[in-house]
Amino acid sequence: MSELPLGFEDVVAARERIAPWITRTPVLSSPLLNERLCADVRFKCENLQRAGAFKARGAHNAVFALDEAAAVKGVATHSSGNHAASLSLAAQNRGVQAHLVMPRNAPSIKVAAVQRAGGIVHFCEPTLAAREAGVAEVVAQTGATLIHPYNNLDVIAGQGTAAVEFLEDCPDLDVLLAPVGGGGLMSGTAVAARALMPQVRLVATEPAQADDAYRSWTSGTHVLNHTPNTIADGLRTTLGGNAFVILRALLDDFVTVSEDAIVEAMRLVWEHLKLVIEPSSAVPVAALLARRDGVSGRKVGIILSGGNVDLDRLPWQAD
Amino acid sequence: MSELPLGFEDVVAARERIAPWITRTPVLSSPLLNERLCADVRFKCENLQRAGAFKARGAHNAVFALDEAAAVKGVATHSSGNHAASLSLAAQNRGVQAHLVMPRNAPSIKVAAVQRAGGIVHFCEPTLAAREAGVAEVVAQTGATLIHPYNNLDVIAGQGTAAVEFLEDCPDLDVLLAPVGGGGLMSGTAVAARALMPQVRLVATEPAQADDAYRSWTSGTHVLNHTPNTIADGLRTTLGGNAFVILRALLDDFVTVSEDAIVEAMRLVWEHLKLVIEPSSAVPVAALLARRDGVSGRKVGIILSGGNVDLDRLPWQAD
Repeated sequence: MSELPLGFEDVVAARERIAPWITRTPVLSSPLLNERLCADVRFKCENLQRAGAFKARGAHNAVFALDEAAAVKGVATHSSGNHAASLSLAAQNRGVQAHLVMPRNAPSIKVAAVQRAGGIVHFCEPTLAAREAGVAEVVAQTGATLIHPYNNLDVIAGQGTAAVEFLEDCPDLDVLLAPVGGGGLMSGTAVAARALMPQVRLVATEPAQADDAYRSWTSGTHVLNHTPNTIADGLRTTLGGNAFVILRALLDDFVTVSEDAIVEAMRLVWEHLKLVIEPSSAVPVAALLARRDGVSGRKVGIILSGGNVDLDRLPWQAD
Repeated sequence: MSELPLGFEDVVAARERIAPWITRTPVLSSPLLNERLCADVRFKCENLQRAGAFKARGAHNAVFALDEAAAVKGVATHSSGNHAASLSLAAQNRGVQAHLVMPRNAPSIKVAAVQRAGGIVHFCEPTLAAREAGVAEVVAQTGATLIHPYNNLDVIAGQGTAAVEFLEDCPDLDVLLAPVGGGGLMSGTAVAARALMPQVRLVATEPAQADDAYRSWTSGTHVLNHTPNTIADGLRTTLGGNAFVILRALLDDFVTVSEDAIVEAMRLVWEHLKLVIEPSSAVPVAALLARRDGVSGRKVGIILSGGNVDLDRLPWQAD
C-alpha cells in the first residue's frame, strides 16, 4: 500500500503531537441499545472531544505541525462548522489567529463555538465554490495558511488518532463503522485500523441523500457533482481526493442510510446511551439498524463523530 | 457516629454484592463548563448507569441481600420512576417478579423502562398516601417484600457505592454535591465520603420548590408536610427518616435552587458536557451556578443522578 498518500507512521506522529490538547474520549456501551441493535456495540465518544467533535484532532495536528514562520500569520479554512470551531481552538492553543469562512446556514451553536475560541468568522453562500473563493480571499489578504477541513494530510492523520485509542481500548472489534462527509475521519480511521488490526471489517456510512462518497467508492471515479440534502449537516461536504484514494484501497463495505433512519438512530442514542450526538454521528448507528443481520452477535465499533446540535431544534420534533 | 443507622462497612458490602450487575460509570468534565462554573468540576455520570440512574445500585443491593425464601415471593415498591425501573431490572437479574406502584403522572419513558424489564405496573394517584396504600395492598396480596425506594438501609448502602467509585477516581475533591429527594443518594454518599475523605465538604442540593429536606436539615425537625412543585420529578419525594438522621449528622451545607436555575443548568450540561440528564441531575449544577463564589477555583464533584427524560418535552422549549 505504498501508493497511499498517508501512512500509519503519520498517525502515530499526530498522536504524540496533539496529546496535550486532546481528550482521550471514553468508549461507552448500553445493554438496551445492544438488544435493539442485535450486536455488542462499543461507541467511541468523540462528541465528548474538545470542541465537541473529532475534528479537534486533525485541526490540532495541522496547526501544531506548522513551522513558526507560517504559524504567526495564522490559519484559515472553510467549514460547515466543527472544523471551524476546532481550528479556532487549535489556533488559540498555539497563540495564533484563525480565520473561518462559514456558510450562512451553519447552525448557530457552531458559529458561537468559533467565536468563543477567538476565531474570526467570514460568512459566505452555502456552496463549495463560494467557500473556496472566500477562503482564497482571506489567505491572500493575511498570509494565513489554508488548513483544508478534510483533504489536508495532517488533518487526516490527526483524525486517525481516534481509531488508535479505540482499538487500544477494544482490541477485539470485528467491525468498525464511521460516517463519511469529506472523508477525513473515515480515511484516517482506515489507515490506523488496517495497520493495527488487519482483519477488522471497515465499513463507511453516508446519508443516501448525500452519497457522493458512496458513488465514488462503488464506481471508482471521484464523483464531484453533489447536491446533498441531508439533516446530517456535518456530512454535506464533497469527498476529498486523498480520502477517495485511501477509501478505495482500504474499505470493505459502504452503507447508505435514509433520513428517517438517521433521526431514529439519533433518538435511540440519546434515549439509551444518554449522549447528545449530532445527526452525522447517528449515520453509522442507522446503518446498523438497517442492516443488523450482517453484524448479528458481532462486536461492532462505532465512532460517534460529534455532539454539536441546536437544542432548540431537534429533528424528531415538529416545527 | 455510632448512632447512625448505616456504616461504611455496609457500603463496602453493597459494592461487592452489586458489582456483577452495575456499570462503573465514568467521571467526565468539560473545559467550557468549568469556565462557566468558575471551578474544576468532575461529574460522576450515573445517567450512564444501568436503567439510566444511580437507583440501580440500591435496588440491586436490596434485591440480592434477600434470602431465597423471601426473594421467590418477589419485591414491590412505590416510586416516581427510576427506583421502579431499577427494581424491575434487579428482580429480573435475580429471576424474581417486581411489582411497581407508580403515580399516574410518572413520565412515560419511566413507565416504559419498568415494563421493558418485566415489572408489573400498578398505577395510583400522585400522593405519598396513595402510593403507600397501593404498595401495602400489593404486598398483602403477593407476599412480596417491600423495597422502600429511599428509606431501606440496603438501598441507601447501595447508593453510597457511587461515591466510593467517584472518590477512587478523584481522590482530591474539595467539595461533593448531590441532589436530595428521599435522601437515599445523599445519605449513602455522605456515609461513604465521610469515611473515605473526612475533610471533603459535603453539600446537599434541592429544588426550592421541593425543599422539605432543606427545612428538616436546618430546623432539626423531620418535616413531613410537603407539597412539591418542581420540574425535577425525581426529587418530589419526602425525605426518609434514615436519611434525615444521617444528613443531620454528616452534611456541611445545604443549597436550594430555583426552577429557572435547574432548567439553565440542565441545558448547560446537555450543551457542553454532551450528556442527556434529567432535571433532578441538574440541581447540584444549578447550585454551583447560583453560588459559584464559594467554590471558585476549587475541585468540585457532582453526582449526575440520572438521564431518564422525555425527549419530546424538553423544559427549555415552549409547549
